[in-house]
Amino acid sequence: MQPAPETALAIAQALIRCPSVTPEDAGALTYVAGLLERAGFEVHTPAFSEPGQPEIRNLYARIGRGAPCLVFAGHTDVVPPGQEGSWTHPPFAGEVADGRLYGRGAADMKGGIAAMLAAALAHLDRHGPPAEGSLAFLLTGDEEGPAVNGTVKLLAWAKERGERFDHCVLGEPTNPNRLGEMMKIGRRGSLTGRLAVKGRQGHVAYPHLALNPIPVLGRVIAALTDPPLDRGTERFDASNLEFTTVDVANPATNVIPAEAKAVFNIRFNDLWTPETLAAEIGRRVATACEEARFALTFDPTNAVAFVTEPDDFVHLVSGAIRAETGLSPELSTTGGTSDARFIRRYCPVVEFGLVGQTMHAVDENVAVRDLESLARIYGRIIESYLPPRNSRGTCA
Amino acid sequence: MQPAPETALAIAQALIRCPSVTPEDAGALTYVAGLLERAGFEVHTPAFSEPGQPEIRNLYARIGRGAPCLVFAGHTDVVPPGQEGSWTHPPFAGEVADGRLYGRGAADMKGGIAAMLAAALAHLDRHGPPAEGSLAFLLTGDEEGPAVNGTVKLLAWAKERGERFDHCVLGEPTNPNRLGEMMKIGRRGSLTGRLAVKGRQGHVAYPHLALNPIPVLGRVIAALTDPPLDRGTERFDASNLEFTTVDVANPATNVIPAEAKAVFNIRFNDLWTPETLAAEIGRRVATACEEARFALTFDPTNAVAFVTEPDDFVHLVSGAIRAETGLSPELSTTGGTSDARFIRRYCPVVEFGLVGQTMHAVDENVAVRDLESLARIYGRIIESYLPPRNSRGTCA
Repeated sequence: MQPAPETALAIAQALIRCPSVTPEDAGALTYVAGLLERAGFEVHTPAFSEPGQPEIRNLYARIGRGAPCLVFAGHTDVVPPGQEGSWTHPPFAGEVADGRLYGRGAADMKGGIAAMLAAALAHLDRHGPPAEGSLAFLLTGDEEGPAVNGTVKLLAWAKERGERFDHCVLGEPTNPNRLGEMMKIGRRGSLTGRLAVKGRQGHVAYPHLALNPIPVLGRVIAALTDPPLDRGTERFDASNLEFTTVDVANPATNVIPAEAKAVFNIRFNDLWTPETLAAEIGRRVATACEEARFALTFDPTNAVAFVTEPDDFVHLVSGAIRAETGLSPELSTTGGTSDARFIRRYCPVVEFGLVGQTMHAVDENVAVRDLESLARIYGRIIESYLPPRNSRGTCA
Repeated sequence: MQPAPETALAIAQALIRCPSVTPEDAGALTYVAGLLERAGFEVHTPAFSEPGQPEIRNLYARIGRGAPCLVFAGHTDVVPPGQEGSWTHPPFAGEVADGRLYGRGAADMKGGIAAMLAAALAHLDRHGPPAEGSLAFLLTGDEEGPAVNGTVKLLAWAKERGERFDHCVLGEPTNPNRLGEMMKIGRRGSLTGRLAVKGRQGHVAYPHLALNPIPVLGRVIAALTDPPLDRGTERFDASNLEFTTVDVANPATNVIPAEAKAVFNIRFNDLWTPETLAAEIGRRVATACEEARFALTFDPTNAVAFVTEPDDFVHLVSGAIRAETGLSPELSTTGGTSDARFIRRYCPVVEFGLVGQTMHAVDENVAVRDLESLARIYGRIIESYLPPRNSRGTCA
């Protein structure tokens, strides 16, 4: 008789105890690889690099060769803990207190990875390796960092090897307050623009000889904010533009500056592509600048708006959530970007994980009960997804 | 027989050859002191200092003890030449080419000082020391710098010694294009405000959890610009506000910043005091900020709006200008601040000097003809101002 598989809590604690702040792995993926190998997975840990950037370790594991293939995706890297002294429980100790697991990554997303691993191990323990379908894991150590040596390259690497995926569950924390209230079936796109308004420098006492770019920038700020870019669509909130900085850096209080700069970021819905959005912004900026010259550029973006239309798979996942929590999860497209923007080019992807309230914050934590519930939800998804064996432990 | 007094051109060249970039004197005031002593002036060169700032030399000279006392004021310090290699004629050589005198300070205002010295020396040469009135010079080496060890302290020092002045001519360059077109009978005030709009930091993907201070600052920029502060008065242009910088310095394109800062400067007319103006700005900022908190402070200012109402003295000066140039000078209050804002607390002050077009610029220069004309204008002012001797070289 095999020993009982690890619990989600035990795996989460082991992972939190690896201080895997991007780009460090700190043993996290080695630990995961060991668990999966012992359960019968074929495991690969390819490392990817880029000139001037640290090498990043990733993990791809699969059990079964047949279709359909359900892949669980996630990241083992975490954001820095900040002031460790501010934490009530040390960020890399994995302590449990009052029914809550504390530590950096508890919610984002070592807890999610622990739940999917525990679910897979329990399923295999109960049912053995899948007879027809297959189960895979795509884990990266580069999601919180530059995200260039992570999921993007791992997906290309897998495709190169002939791996095909049919559906993906990404375990990012998706619930604002309560486990089961929200899953994500898409994400908004993200576009960053950089504007320089050109004026004409001069003395404040002789404004008629100068052109102050700051009031022009003021008009641009107003023009990009109102009217709204749109009012939202069936699956998406309204697109939203936020200025993130405005800078002149002129120390002289008697000098009208020559230039004023601004940066803004737009989270946009499926009414726009980066190209149509850049054109609309360009029109608004040109109108607001009037006679002033300006330079407007946009950062390259790989985050376009996408949605996984609610089909059988989405219903399978939401059904598993409802069965465990009693809640019908909202099919949301809100929040930031995630690696789902890369995965969706290979197969339909949905996101469901823990409660994200404390992610990236001091004393990041999750309820141990939620961790166990999430493992059961993932277990139900695997159970429903993989074709049953002829014999499911009992004689047919 | 005495040698003929120095010409304005010769004095200007000698002064330009002293590289007296604030706080350096480089021999300029020593040279002036020698000229005035030889002409019979009582000359003092008090040095003033302040903790943390270099000691600055100043000059006070007077001939005659009686009233009325006409004082000529000015500064021998100059702004830096910038890239000396960009100058067609070296900035401290005092070269003459095509009828123009080149050099840093040619217009602002070694040329003006040279003209007033030449005028005074010529007058004394012709008429001898004044019988009743008196003639004085107030020259500082700290006008282009912090202006704390210059005219302010020199005036207080002179008052302490019992010196009383009846009228002052400050020789700053006042003509935009043509000698004789403009004199200044007052100056606008100057007030600098510093604003910090407080928002609430957050992630750009969750704007409802944050409060972006940048659109608030955009509304403040609009609110301080429109409606205009006023429409001008009989003697003054409309007050004008210029933003000189806006700064957030947030490098993260996915973060809504917590604070946005701005600095603005107002050149204001006689409808306002610094206090009433600060109150009006405070009201506009509060309205524009709506629910956002803000901090608004104003730098201490010693520049309040003032005007020397056109009286006999103003007409005496404008008459001298008209007699020499054929132009009726505009009685202006435009432009920046000058040391006139300090002098006007002691006696009525007007400003008239050379053409300012190239001041502070590379290849600063003035027409030699203008320099000679200005010396004759100052000579006419002295001639009209000082009571004639019983014998003006002829027997009564």
